Amino acid sequence: MCQPPCHFVSNEICMMMSVPRWMLLICSLVVVVTYSSQESLQRYLANRQAVVQKESSHRTGGSLKLNSKELRVNQYLMTVKAKEYAAALQGAPFPPAQHFFKSKNLIEKSEVFQLIQLLPKGAALHLHDISITSLNWVIKNATYKADLYFCVSTDAAGSLQFEFFSVPPTVKESSCAVLWQSVSLARNKQGAAVFDEWLFNKMSMWTDDDPKKVYPNSTAAWQKFESSLGPVYDLVRNIGVFEPYLWQAMTEFIQDNVQYMEIRGLLPPLKTSNGTQLSRNYTMQKYATIFDKFVSAYPGNFSGAKYIFSSKRHVAEEIVKSDVSLALSLRDTYPDHFAGYDLVGREDAGYPLIHFIQELLLPSQLNRSLPYFFHAGETDWEGTSIDENLIDALLLNTSRIGHGYAITKHPVAMAMALSQDTAIEVNPISNQVLGLVDDLRNHPAATLISQGFPVVISSDDPATWNAGQLSYDFYQAFMGLAGEQADLATLKQLAQDSIRYSAMSNSEKKAAMQLWQKKWDSFLDEILSSIK
Amino acid sequence: MCQPPCHFVSNEICMMMSVPRWMLLICSLVVVVTYSSQESLQRYLANRQAVVQKESSHRTGGSLKLNSKELRVNQYLMTVKAKEYAAALQGAPFPPAQHFFKSKNLIEKSEVFQLIQLLPKGAALHLHDISITSLNWVIKNATYKADLYFCVSTDAAGSLQFEFFSVPPTVKESSCAVLWQSVSLARNKQGAAVFDEWLFNKMSMWTDDDPKKVYPNSTAAWQKFESSLGPVYDLVRNIGVFEPYLWQAMTEFIQDNVQYMEIRGLLPPLKTSNGTQLSRNYTMQKYATIFDKFVSAYPGNFSGAKYIFSSKRHVAEEIVKSDVSLALSLRDTYPDHFAGYDLVGREDAGYPLIHFIQELLLPSQLNRSLPYFFHAGETDWEGTSIDENLIDALLLNTSRIGHGYAITKHPVAMAMALSQDTAIEVNPISNQVLGLVDDLRNHPAATLISQGFPVVISSDDPATWNAGQLSYDFYQAFMGLAGEQADLATLKQLAQDSIRYSAMSNSEKKAAMQLWQKKWDSFLDEILSSIK
Repeated sequence: MCQPPCHFVSNEICMMMSVPRWMLLICSLVVVVTYSSQESLQRYLANRQAVVQKESSHRTGGSLKLNSKELRVNQYLMTVKAKEYAAALQGAPFPPAQHFFKSKNLIEKSEVFQLIQLLPKGAALHLHDISITSLNWVIKNATYKADLYFCVSTDAAGSLQFEFFSVPPTVKESSCAVLWQSVSLARNKQGAAVFDEWLFNKMSMWTDDDPKKVYPNSTAAWQKFESSLGPVYDLVRNIGVFEPYLWQAMTEFIQDNVQYMEIRGLLPPLKTSNGTQLSRNYTMQKYATIFDKFVSAYPGNFSGAKYIFSSKRHVAEEIVKSDVSLALSLRDTYPDHFAGYDLVGREDAGYPLIHFIQELLLPSQLNRSLPYFFHAGETDWEGTSIDENLIDALLLNTSRIGHGYAITKHPVAMAMALSQDTAIEVNPISNQVLGLVDDLRNHPAATLISQGFPVVISSDDPATWNAGQLSYDFYQAFMGLAGEQADLATLKQLAQDSIRYSAMSNSEKKAAMQLWQKKWDSFLDEILSSIK
Repeated sequence: MCQPPCHFVSNEICMMMSVPRWMLLICSLVVVVTYSSQESLQRYLANRQAVVQKESSHRTGGSLKLNSKELRVNQYLMTVKAKEYAAALQGAPFPPAQHFFKSKNLIEKSEVFQLIQLLPKGAALHLHDISITSLNWVIKNATYKADLYFCVSTDAAGSLQFEFFSVPPTVKESSCAVLWQSVSLARNKQGAAVFDEWLFNKMSMWTDDDPKKVYPNSTAAWQKFESSLGPVYDLVRNIGVFEPYLWQAMTEFIQDNVQYMEIRGLLPPLKTSNGTQLSRNYTMQKYATIFDKFVSAYPGNFSGAKYIFSSKRHVAEEIVKSDVSLALSLRDTYPDHFAGYDLVGREDAGYPLIHFIQELLLPSQLNRSLPYFFHAGETDWEGTSIDENLIDALLLNTSRIGHGYAITKHPVAMAMALSQDTAIEVNPISNQVLGLVDDLRNHPAATLISQGFPVVISSDDPATWNAGQLSYDFYQAFMGLAGEQADLATLKQLAQDSIRYSAMSNSEKKAAMQLWQKKWDSFLDEILSSIK
């Protein structure tokens, strides 16, 4: 509690939660007395310096001490960052303030971005399985496979559907507006360039038009988002596509200097070439095998990956119940690869967590442990049942919070997250593209980072909005969320926190942190030699 | 400090500022133990209810107890509010999420807005003298006066200038693109409707076109904003316009159920009909006289007004020095009407407070008291010298912070404001129109209100953006910043806080609060009789 004299530089305990209103008055009187006395300029400047330093020490990374190599890299980083800020203050477009579809080219020209690409970013902890491999690869590989058919759906978005058939059905599928058509025939007829561009437009949210016109609100953005994911889901379920797709995802992330991934997914039953549907247990087994195989293929380079099984949030309670049971059993079978459970899909449109409370309490009632990784508070709608998901996620002891966009409007939830050391998974570009915020400087994670609140930066569904792997989101966080003063220490802390808040075991974390340190040292040398 | 067991519902001391990282780990372990044990549904729901109630009690107004009359009005209010939220969640346009120029019509149809219009809102504490009287009145009255001339400036915006002449100059003024022209002749020539609409377009930011196209960024918005204010300034400086203009401003605010105002201004030297320029001391004397006259004209209805003298933030140190001296002397001469001092103009473009630190420390060095009411942090540019204004404002013991838009990115500044009980003057529509934020649900004051951080709602320059007096901003705060659960208690607290955080003396505040209570009781009766 606040103990007068409440000189604010040395005493920050007068924080909002812990001070009743009557106490504020006492504090205020004491401060007024202090400050209406003779005050020399020097005393003022010293006080000011203390406040500025205190602010700075609170920021994510603010308590890290940089070594001499890091300080030299930091000097370079802050010089190019200052140049980009200065240009923006003079009127040049500031990428975080623009829609990503308008700013992507600008970001690529940024020297800050180029450094961030090289920076070992640690882990990407909030990713969805069907949007982690570049669409270019998906289109040029998966859709070139033999026996692939497509149709356009009857839904409002005219979504694309894919299916593999040795012999296609001769009657129209009820969800299709037309008969299944051969991809290779259609491609030959239209020309590969035209057809593949058409596929890209169906499978991506990207647009060269004004994105605010194309997606005037969150609902419109989500409609196209979900419509874009469908055809990738269809492809990835094919057993012939599944492994090369996942392999390619990890390859692309490692190339972007990400060393560990946690991937959410519905655990789709895979389909064989003759249409047989395999078990979800088998899918998990494939994930585990491929994760391990990839680690072996990149010795000393990749720390691995884990899977977070998710149900859609608009399904019936019975389905969540059986999925939770499946999750418990998979957690036993694959303790090193199966991280836990989540509910996914647009929060504004699905059931809130409280709707499934009986099912979600099941593990604790069975005295079993099932880590949760709930999406919560991915909304602008304060005070609705939707943003109360934050409270349920925390009461259910979620390991991290997916998005947590609304958390700064929930002081008690913030205190809970902090006391439980629950990190927020921040996905800046996703939040912008899906219509939560236009100018990323207004993203609530700016507040979180300024307080050193535990956050990890991730990219959600980067393939759908053509946002690479993790570097674009890291750039937006560094330039748009963390402010001009955030430096290499902030980037270092974000990278380290991504390992610290991962679902890895303590020994896995230790190994991952050692690997990260090795990569970090090489990165410092690489930058130093390039700026000589 | 956090004392385990850190059960978060009962123990919120684990707040971000006061808990070192090592302590978080202990807290987290304790909580995990608590929550992985057998947990009954009922215990869960009780815990949940406690968290939800705790959240609710933190919100501005959350600790107020409503009496039975207030509860009945609240029931009506929350019914109509829920209806408007439900429609928006179903896809109807939600006014705070749109640009005000698009949402004004929608707001006027809202039953919540209609109630807010009637609600006694207390004080408007952040207002600028030349944008507080509706432009309709200004155009239909001030510009119809004899001997008024105008010219279009040579500046990029083609700003309008006014001047009164008995005999106009025959040579072109250097700032004018053309010779001074008679307003009445031009009006006769073009027709009053056409000419007056042209005047409105020159004197207002309003546009029927897409405001995001017309004002693509903050710089474009500010250019038009400043260009719109110039001609009003020219008119108001005329001694024949000054008093009726100010009288009309107070009349309009009282009609909008505002009972007290604090008005910032440059203290322009008034001009007589023969062009003689009077002293600024005289301007202040006129303010004091008119304020008192107005209070007498509305006995038991209006608590008065005070003036906050302001310098522009791009002027030389010498000017600030002499303005501070003038402020000290006016504070002695008009203790009941002269509230204090501020610096105004676009923060992004002017000098930061630290630039004038020697001048601003003058009063304390002279052991004199000069209340400050600094604009600070009206920016999206975190970490720049601009948003450090927040720190200087607080170190200089500002009485309130104008805008403070950036404060949630400054944890130490937040703690300082809280310990000094310094309220933030929140002007939602201004911040939107001047390009800081698009969707008001992303306004940082949503975070402040959720914590019960001291805020007052004001309207800045409402005439320039055609936003009435205070009700539109109150509506935006209630619907867009405070979330769906905020109720009549939030509105009551905001109204009471506007008196509590005013520059009134304690006895004036007491009288104002009594008057407010009387108005509040009538308001409750009026609503109850209308909903019978």
